[in-house]
Amino acid sequence: MKNVNLGLIGCGTIGRGVIDAINKNGKIIADRTGVNLVLKGVCDKDEKLLKKIKKVPVKTLRALDLINDDEIDIIIELIGGINPARDIVLGAIKKKKHIVTANKALLSESWKEIFAAAGKNRVFVKFEASVGGALPIIRAMKESFVANNIEVVYGILNGTTNFILTEMKAKGCSFAEALKTAQKMGFAEADPELDISGKDSAHKLSILSLLGYGVDISWQDIYTEGIENISSQDIDFASKLGYSIKLLAIAKNTEEGLELRVHPTLIHSSHLLADVRGADNAIYVKGDLIGESLIYGKGAGQKPTSSSVMGDIVDIAKHVAFYGSENPMPYNLDYSKDNPRLSKMDNLTMSFYLRFSVIDKPGVLAGISSVLAENDISIASVAQEERAEGQAVPVIILTHKAEEGNMRKAIGHIDTQDYVTDNTVVIRMEHET
Amino acid sequence: MKNVNLGLIGCGTIGRGVIDAINKNGKIIADRTGVNLVLKGVCDKDEKLLKKIKKVPVKTLRALDLINDDEIDIIIELIGGINPARDIVLGAIKKKKHIVTANKALLSESWKEIFAAAGKNRVFVKFEASVGGALPIIRAMKESFVANNIEVVYGILNGTTNFILTEMKAKGCSFAEALKTAQKMGFAEADPELDISGKDSAHKLSILSLLGYGVDISWQDIYTEGIENISSQDIDFASKLGYSIKLLAIAKNTEEGLELRVHPTLIHSSHLLADVRGADNAIYVKGDLIGESLIYGKGAGQKPTSSSVMGDIVDIAKHVAFYGSENPMPYNLDYSKDNPRLSKMDNLTMSFYLRFSVIDKPGVLAGISSVLAENDISIASVAQEERAEGQAVPVIILTHKAEEGNMRKAIGHIDTQDYVTDNTVVIRMEHET
Repeated sequence: MKNVNLGLIGCGTIGRGVIDAINKNGKIIADRTGVNLVLKGVCDKDEKLLKKIKKVPVKTLRALDLINDDEIDIIIELIGGINPARDIVLGAIKKKKHIVTANKALLSESWKEIFAAAGKNRVFVKFEASVGGALPIIRAMKESFVANNIEVVYGILNGTTNFILTEMKAKGCSFAEALKTAQKMGFAEADPELDISGKDSAHKLSILSLLGYGVDISWQDIYTEGIENISSQDIDFASKLGYSIKLLAIAKNTEEGLELRVHPTLIHSSHLLADVRGADNAIYVKGDLIGESLIYGKGAGQKPTSSSVMGDIVDIAKHVAFYGSENPMPYNLDYSKDNPRLSKMDNLTMSFYLRFSVIDKPGVLAGISSVLAENDISIASVAQEERAEGQAVPVIILTHKAEEGNMRKAIGHIDTQDYVTDNTVVIRMEHET
Repeated sequence: MKNVNLGLIGCGTIGRGVIDAINKNGKIIADRTGVNLVLKGVCDKDEKLLKKIKKVPVKTLRALDLINDDEIDIIIELIGGINPARDIVLGAIKKKKHIVTANKALLSESWKEIFAAAGKNRVFVKFEASVGGALPIIRAMKESFVANNIEVVYGILNGTTNFILTEMKAKGCSFAEALKTAQKMGFAEADPELDISGKDSAHKLSILSLLGYGVDISWQDIYTEGIENISSQDIDFASKLGYSIKLLAIAKNTEEGLELRVHPTLIHSSHLLADVRGADNAIYVKGDLIGESLIYGKGAGQKPTSSSVMGDIVDIAKHVAFYGSENPMPYNLDYSKDNPRLSKMDNLTMSFYLRFSVIDKPGVLAGISSVLAENDISIASVAQEERAEGQAVPVIILTHKAEEGNMRKAIGHIDTQDYVTDNTVVIRMEHET
């Protein structure tokens, strides 16, 4: 049995999950791998929290105490956020420590610097827990599906928003009410902006785009729309038409280029992703060899996330124990840097769900459809419920594939008409089964 | 860019899929990994087939020509079956070649000998394609979920049987008719025995039990029941009661011991596995950290299977290119050899679906229920359709949890009664969500 020494920086929820996992399942890990994980040191800024942790030789408020400890092989960074996580990770790499992190924000923002340093110092940086909690999506994209051209990725990558959309559908409640429930149940932060705005999903999509396409794109440059404006009315209309509304992170590799975007999306109720429940995550990957595939599971939470952190720790620990402390493998993530071929949002073609709020009077539908036609948008179906003439009424239109830019123009035009009582709701549709 | 040389033995459907994948996607693999895969030689017993293969330096009828080729780093064994695959794999290992195989029968039967030889010669033996086609289940069990106690595995591991059950449900047709359709569409072999008997699933379950529990069990020692006796009537009754019938490979780790079994199973229609379509495969894994997880995809076919073979090849090739030609990692698969705690089938407790074929006359239900009660079997629900008195009628009973052994006794007793017109159908139920 070989010992490998770990230093854990950040003893919050996930960090304590990792400590529990080592204590509880260290024996079975050793049985399976021949490696004994030894938690040599823990670091946190909260002294009270540190005191509660048992059986760890070094407890410190200073990350440097672990980074400078020559006996430690692997640093586990679980403090989150950009600073001081960035300095800690880069400092540890310089000291030839391998890194396991769940920090999607840091990776999304500083991956280039981090992996350049890791390559130079011949250490591993592993980050399975940064996308999709317990889901083994990083390993799948990087290893299992390595021989595939990845044609489509649809990810439900944010548990908070999926919980809210599920709740709105099940209870028929508003976004605000569902958000409150999510906060009460611990599925949403007190400040939920990062989640509901789609930014969290964009962080994760930028990591997947690096793995799937070798494309280096900042999450800020990914078109991102949140779920704040989704109403239970739209969820209900979509459901009657045979669709679910999900916040999808989408990557699509077509002849025209690579599409990367995050937005609420209508998918058919028979789609594998339509039934993804509550705070769960799921990632649908279509490749030229694998065909369609789905990975489904817990996208967040102490135990699921710690499972992925542990998987990375064990991977590196096996290497350290049996191959030696260096990782001679080059990092080669942005292999498409000379040819990113990123598509512009305005040029994408897709189908749309449109909900117009209009006064029910003669000529309104003719008005709407003529503006759509002028912009090369062809109508697939129309639904309008009966109301008393002269009252406001929703008109639902599903379109055939149309250009995003044309749609913006058309809706901009229609929303200035005097028969329109409220801004038109536009939700994109995806049809990969 | 570093070259790694491959020798492919067996140029059937999957073998040609691997050749196509190297030719078509070799460039993107090289971009992603820095490794250039070179197919140095191919071997097959069919000379005509060999002639059709282009751009490969060595084409041979003799496996030894590749095994003895000092330039070849990795042997890909895709001939299937025990012999001569066993000799080829063991011979190649002795020559310090790394092995990639999709051969579940060989692994299930000879894994001990193969991994002992691999450990001694410090080579890799990788086998992702042996279970679940394109599904990255081996990697998930061995690496991603390594820190978990695996509580439950439910696998739909055989595409042929899942296609047949799906077809029977959709069309209301008989097993025989659905099998014919499966054969016509290429989803079943001319001799389908290995698939429909559940043996293929048992092979795969024996591999998963090694990975998940370190338990060395021959597939012959796994309780296995096929789908030959499933009728569309049972599928229909199950559906009305809110259940689907699936052929599941089940591993369950309870305080009483480890259960391993393959049989048709009623699962609730809301279960993630209930909607697995046609010839697709899916594996549900419940672990103490990950909670519930599902991996879904294509379980067979040229491209999906070749994708998993390629993933293994790339894994080893990266190692050879950057770490060196030896694999110093010990194989430690049967780590539970001293404590397998395998449960006996007769002692398992579970719920049952029972379909009695009886004459509709007074006292029959009383007779059945008293025999069940005598054997400690408690009834959860009864359904009997109205028929003219004196005619044969199906009576459906769902039970609460009962012992398998008691159930056998009870049914043995009931089936001798004169009001019983046909053998009682017994299908086990599983309730993990």
